[in-house]
Amino acid sequence: MARKKGNLKFGNEYNMGLLTDLYQLTMAASYFEHGKNEIATFDMFVRKLPKNRNYLVAVGLEQVLEYLENLHFGEEDIAYLKKQGIFKDEFLEYLKEFRFTGDVYAVKEGTIIFANEPILRITAPRIEAQIVETYILNQINFQTMIASKASRIVHAAKKAAVVDFSPRRDHGSDAALKAARASYIAGCVGTSNVLAGKIYEIPIIGTMAHSYIMSFDDELEAFRTYAKTFPENTVLLIDTYNTIEGAKKAVIIAKEMGAKGYKLKGVRLDSGDLVELSKKVRRILDKEGLDYVKIVASSDLNEYKIAELIEKGAKIDIYGVGTEMGTSKDAPAISGVYKLCEDTNKEGKLVAKIKLSEGKITLPGRKQVYRISNKNGEYKKDIIALEEEILDGEPLLEKVMENGRRLQEKEKITEIRKRTLENLARLPKKYKSINNYEAYPVEISTKLKILIEDLIKKYGGGK
Amino acid sequence: MARKKGNLKFGNEYNMGLLTDLYQLTMAASYFEHGKNEIATFDMFVRKLPKNRNYLVAVGLEQVLEYLENLHFGEEDIAYLKKQGIFKDEFLEYLKEFRFTGDVYAVKEGTIIFANEPILRITAPRIEAQIVETYILNQINFQTMIASKASRIVHAAKKAAVVDFSPRRDHGSDAALKAARASYIAGCVGTSNVLAGKIYEIPIIGTMAHSYIMSFDDELEAFRTYAKTFPENTVLLIDTYNTIEGAKKAVIIAKEMGAKGYKLKGVRLDSGDLVELSKKVRRILDKEGLDYVKIVASSDLNEYKIAELIEKGAKIDIYGVGTEMGTSKDAPAISGVYKLCEDTNKEGKLVAKIKLSEGKITLPGRKQVYRISNKNGEYKKDIIALEEEILDGEPLLEKVMENGRRLQEKEKITEIRKRTLENLARLPKKYKSINNYEAYPVEISTKLKILIEDLIKKYGGGK
Repeated sequence: MARKKGNLKFGNEYNMGLLTDLYQLTMAASYFEHGKNEIATFDMFVRKLPKNRNYLVAVGLEQVLEYLENLHFGEEDIAYLKKQGIFKDEFLEYLKEFRFTGDVYAVKEGTIIFANEPILRITAPRIEAQIVETYILNQINFQTMIASKASRIVHAAKKAAVVDFSPRRDHGSDAALKAARASYIAGCVGTSNVLAGKIYEIPIIGTMAHSYIMSFDDELEAFRTYAKTFPENTVLLIDTYNTIEGAKKAVIIAKEMGAKGYKLKGVRLDSGDLVELSKKVRRILDKEGLDYVKIVASSDLNEYKIAELIEKGAKIDIYGVGTEMGTSKDAPAISGVYKLCEDTNKEGKLVAKIKLSEGKITLPGRKQVYRISNKNGEYKKDIIALEEEILDGEPLLEKVMENGRRLQEKEKITEIRKRTLENLARLPKKYKSINNYEAYPVEISTKLKILIEDLIKKYGGGK
Repeated sequence: MARKKGNLKFGNEYNMGLLTDLYQLTMAASYFEHGKNEIATFDMFVRKLPKNRNYLVAVGLEQVLEYLENLHFGEEDIAYLKKQGIFKDEFLEYLKEFRFTGDVYAVKEGTIIFANEPILRITAPRIEAQIVETYILNQINFQTMIASKASRIVHAAKKAAVVDFSPRRDHGSDAALKAARASYIAGCVGTSNVLAGKIYEIPIIGTMAHSYIMSFDDELEAFRTYAKTFPENTVLLIDTYNTIEGAKKAVIIAKEMGAKGYKLKGVRLDSGDLVELSKKVRRILDKEGLDYVKIVASSDLNEYKIAELIEKGAKIDIYGVGTEMGTSKDAPAISGVYKLCEDTNKEGKLVAKIKLSEGKITLPGRKQVYRISNKNGEYKKDIIALEEEILDGEPLLEKVMENGRRLQEKEKITEIRKRTLENLARLPKKYKSINNYEAYPVEISTKLKILIEDLIKKYGGGK
């Protein structure tokens, strides 16, 4: 039980070889044993959008590329697999030297995507392509889900800012880190999560808790003590006892700070009727010339509640959103899948593949997605085509990895965020509505349709 | 972009100092500056059960203890905080030497708990107790939520086994690891997640994917190839083209294996009408003397679907459950909170604390939970009392850490799982129903009631 110290790094994607489903490794072992390691191509796409989402924001590629570049099986990993007694030594020897050598095409992080559109495509020797499925899905499903939810919340907040306050309810540490990343990319202005701030260079934002107030004999003393420590960074939580009384005390503190040349940054409301309270608090502050003091609100918020607050005239500048955003509570999973779309046949020729299980048909072949905009730059429709086709419109998939090596440097998160917001600005308003559900038009090119029909004829009538 | 190798360990709780909300650190800095680092006590408890849960299974203590024992701020962490420009050097110096020195009381992992019952109680110098809040909530909320959901699923499955198939939809890597752990503790028989198997010593279980079948020219060849690699561990996925035809091919393989002295382990159904298909497949297998071949089913399952399958006579031995369990989809967050319940006053005396915000009243003082059983050992009711009271019944909270050191060795996961199942067996049936919602009786002791009333009188009339 000795205390351990270390410089272990979190938030990166090292040594995740074993974070895979066992069947990926058993299938790999079988492929290995039978020399079936030809080139195969897999698409990752979302089968169906959750019922209260009109679009998704693709996020998570950076972590996938980092994972693919670093993927390996360490000695302990091999020893663990050996202990299972199901793998032959030759395969374990192969795993010792394993690295990912494939090519990856993907949409840029922050791209708006719809059902059935490939987010990422892997072409690699079959074993490599297979083993990476689980982690790729785990990462892209999660960050895409969060960015999509956060985008709705940021949209609902209009000119007000949204901050990620979710770590305590996120699903573990990785979720807390990546919820902060994905929600920032989608338009949040920062996170309360310090480690996420450090790892991903996201602005960190904080106020104070009720326990702070409660550990002083009176509220004014608590406020004053905090303001002394952070004269340039004080947001006072004013609802511990009575919000209006709290606001009056905040005025006293703001004036004391003002006398010393400092400005109170804000006050926070965390309970009660946020519409009425925010209006009253705003009046109390403004009457005293404290129009620069922002009002922060939190309290189980989501896009619907924020829209209602704004509709009713709440005077709130910053929304702190936790659980609902960090767990995407109304749609806590998206149906991202990873499916074989091209394979090498016995003659060594690449052939398109289709899956025909009931209700789970897949699009065969290597594909490209073309996005067609109108003359104002607004998105009009998408066409999923075969890669060999050249259509008008913007191709969304680009090559990001070749022979296991990244082709671009890691993008700055501020660049990804900027692009995301530009993309969202080009999405017609009706799809951004949080209450209307309307499907954005996604078409299948004629050539792809013909290929699908041919394959259905060949492999069986829709079954 | 060089490839990095390393022996970094995941699934443990090192170097998580910065995985905290910024306000924990700013409050800490203010306490530090003003010498307010007296002993404070915080309870972690769940305010309200989600509407479709009658009970929760407390899990996550092991990770919290590991975190508390290892908690520190590394050089990089301090440098990052310094760069924020809001912390004074004295505080950063203090953080360099920071370690957790407090006492922890907690219920054992696998204990059944209800709303308002303390799961864990921390008594420590205020700064230490404050900084650890975020991570404790992040870990215990998640694992408790998953164990509670998994427990319902395992209960619904009756004699059939349940396996965690969730990694691809879990919220990131830590969620995938700990969903496997929590669901195993709650009664699952294993996980598909290899890394979770390695870290937590959970049985790992796997079958095969459609892509495996599709990479062969025909299904029989795919089956045969796999069976050759894993003569003792083959579960054939039989629904890629047509489940009944797949079952017939599985019979051929089972007989080929039998001729060599091996037994086919099972077949898996992943689509279609699982009731009808499982009955037909069972008949096909049994007719050929293959009653030892198990039927595994997966396909967006949850406790309701499993109960319906069983009700309708489905012949399924093992359920693979993914998304619904790994995200606790119908209740993807629980409202675990961490609240000040005792503090040191100006005279240096320990005094009970209460929070009186609207609808968010807390139970003051250091508490114990007594569980009263009837003579068969069935749980009858709980009483939340003050620690100083001695009541009949089983006290649930025990001291697990003193001065920052664990008092017990890490428990074996099989022990935790066994205890959990024993606890669940003692919970009356009506609370385990997946459709009836009935509140288990949790009372407040007379002494605790009197304390609450006194504090309300002292600090204001319910506000």
